[in-house]
Amino acid sequence: MKKILLIIMDGLGDRPNESLNGNTGLQAAYRPNLNYLASHGVNGLMFPIREGVRPGSDTSHLSILGYNPEEVYTGRGPFEAMGLGMKVKAGDIAFRANFAYRDKNGIIQDRRAGRISEPTNELCDAISMELDGVKFSVKPGVEHRAALVMSGDNLSDRISDSDPHETGKPSHEISPLDPEASHTAEVLNHYLSEARKILDSHPFNLKRSERGDLPANELLLRGAGKAPSLKKFGEKYSMKAGCVVGIPMIAGICDLAGMDVVKYAGATGTVNTDYVGKIRTALEALETRDFVLVNIKAPDVAGHDGNPDLKRRVIEWSDRAFAQIIPKLGDILVAVTGDHSTPCVLKEHSGDPVPLVITTNGMRMDGVIRFDEVTASHGSLKIRSSDLMTLLMGLSDRAEKYGA
Amino acid sequence: MKKILLIIMDGLGDRPNESLNGNTGLQAAYRPNLNYLASHGVNGLMFPIREGVRPGSDTSHLSILGYNPEEVYTGRGPFEAMGLGMKVKAGDIAFRANFAYRDKNGIIQDRRAGRISEPTNELCDAISMELDGVKFSVKPGVEHRAALVMSGDNLSDRISDSDPHETGKPSHEISPLDPEASHTAEVLNHYLSEARKILDSHPFNLKRSERGDLPANELLLRGAGKAPSLKKFGEKYSMKAGCVVGIPMIAGICDLAGMDVVKYAGATGTVNTDYVGKIRTALEALETRDFVLVNIKAPDVAGHDGNPDLKRRVIEWSDRAFAQIIPKLGDILVAVTGDHSTPCVLKEHSGDPVPLVITTNGMRMDGVIRFDEVTASHGSLKIRSSDLMTLLMGLSDRAEKYGA
Repeated sequence: MKKILLIIMDGLGDRPNESLNGNTGLQAAYRPNLNYLASHGVNGLMFPIREGVRPGSDTSHLSILGYNPEEVYTGRGPFEAMGLGMKVKAGDIAFRANFAYRDKNGIIQDRRAGRISEPTNELCDAISMELDGVKFSVKPGVEHRAALVMSGDNLSDRISDSDPHETGKPSHEISPLDPEASHTAEVLNHYLSEARKILDSHPFNLKRSERGDLPANELLLRGAGKAPSLKKFGEKYSMKAGCVVGIPMIAGICDLAGMDVVKYAGATGTVNTDYVGKIRTALEALETRDFVLVNIKAPDVAGHDGNPDLKRRVIEWSDRAFAQIIPKLGDILVAVTGDHSTPCVLKEHSGDPVPLVITTNGMRMDGVIRFDEVTASHGSLKIRSSDLMTLLMGLSDRAEKYGA
Repeated sequence: MKKILLIIMDGLGDRPNESLNGNTGLQAAYRPNLNYLASHGVNGLMFPIREGVRPGSDTSHLSILGYNPEEVYTGRGPFEAMGLGMKVKAGDIAFRANFAYRDKNGIIQDRRAGRISEPTNELCDAISMELDGVKFSVKPGVEHRAALVMSGDNLSDRISDSDPHETGKPSHEISPLDPEASHTAEVLNHYLSEARKILDSHPFNLKRSERGDLPANELLLRGAGKAPSLKKFGEKYSMKAGCVVGIPMIAGICDLAGMDVVKYAGATGTVNTDYVGKIRTALEALETRDFVLVNIKAPDVAGHDGNPDLKRRVIEWSDRAFAQIIPKLGDILVAVTGDHSTPCVLKEHSGDPVPLVITTNGMRMDGVIRFDEVTASHGSLKIRSSDLMTLLMGLSDRAEKYGA
């Protein structure tokens, strides 16, 4: 029985790039350690979720961990809130929110309050409160964006938006879409009226008005979602599990799944992360655990930037860090793959599959000797992300016998 | 975002043929354009419906278009009627029918009225009518075969056959299998008694009797099926869609799915079709649409004929027509595959998978450089037909992002 190290290189898959002579960043990279893993293991392509699906990192990580997003993905609210580093517990209701400008007659004149350039932390803190037994937490996103999380008993996400989704109208009263949501709607309307008073008189907004900027005096809510209750990962697979991830949304998902979120100093979620430290931290975390997930965000960042050469380089930096894994392959089964493709030519996620390699000492090999999108396609595996965990359980000799 | 051209070469897959030195028609064909697509795209095998299923063209086209035949395939009636070029709308009830011989005592003495050699169009027209608010349309098939379509309100297919399925018995009274089908059964029994009178005295049958042939004086009905209501293809995939097909059954399915059935002069559904004109028509149709399906029936015809050399030749003729596609690969994603295999050695459909190639400029390639059943099996794809549309949506950058 081996321990499992699952390395998700975010947005790993790519398409041919002219500037790399028709290669992907992965094909162009010097990657002796990834190639060592390929030539000592099994290889193939993995479709995130399903053939052709263009997933977000949230839905694909859920699927990779063995949670069916069609059952547990409750809309963007909870996942965006986690993405802002908010703690979201099962049963919490989370919203995407905008700071907007409401005129004296209560009409929303700008849904973005002129796109706010300064941080809104002060405003968010001012309207975070407990009210009617419910805890309201607001955290800032980019510009006018924010997220709201409600924590309390018997809350429901079956409520309407307050966001009118167009200007020239007042914000909507929140109304219940199901009878059992009436308590939630009532508390929320009370909260929003309190928040309006605070925002109207807040120094942040008085200063904006003085400067001639639109005050951010209304919090528009949309996309209510109830944070899902995930079956604990540790129970599901009988493994003590942790993760080493730089990006808050993935940390939030792992936390919801009951995995230990292992901190390390150099984690940044950017291309300048401490790659060596991240893998070292993961290997140390495995000493007291059976399973560790590592997310390396950098390839996705390079893909969104449309920068093939940066993508090549972050893969080389990652590869160098992977050297630490090879001496441990007696005790550890390692899998390296992506959560989705982020081709530089698109600067966005695509429906292309991602390469996958799974290696440990003593396992059957499939003759593939390099790790990249094209060579992997000649390997022995063609799977969907939902099959990855059971496959890893099988190959690490952790699967329960099914039958006699 | 690219437009999608999906070319279904009907019955494309084959098995080794002695007369082609152990090759399939596809392997033996000179096919520079198909090979160009293979070497510039992704390749693989597609199982129609599911591994090992031996589909009809109807069930496989439904599955390819993303409709689960287990949900929407309501028996052969509606699809055979479409196959005879009959217009079938959602909710219509369609039957397979035989012209049979009934003796003076009402006993069916021959279920095929001696297999009729002359066309039965006159007879079919004579018994097409409106009765009790229901429209009855009959169209001839081969020999004694025909199809009946009932159009009207509140019709049900939960009724028994009138066909006794053996001679020496009278035809059965149609009876409802569900209470709500009693109206349908009643109207149908009334119709059949009217049809008997017309058939008994029709000049076509008087002439047959004079000649000593059995009169075709009874229409035996079997396999009632309600034409399914398909979710509109255009809405399902947010694409304006059309088809260029020579065979009525596939045109009928596309029509049920709300796709434009684009006519062109040279379409025959035989091996002598105007291949170049068909592809030109499809490319023109794509100028004002996002998706066009082309069905080329010829390989299936050659397979049913058990003629490997003819199969090789119709593939070469198709390949020549595909030359027009290659200059358009900047804007168009093209997929070429079959709906099923029709091996010449079987002269029938088989459960063998079909080769699949998907190509557009700038996409990832998988190193496969020829298009045939064997080489495709080394490609990056192993899919079921039900996954084809989502895959094409993903690779043409048309998929909605699922998650954040």
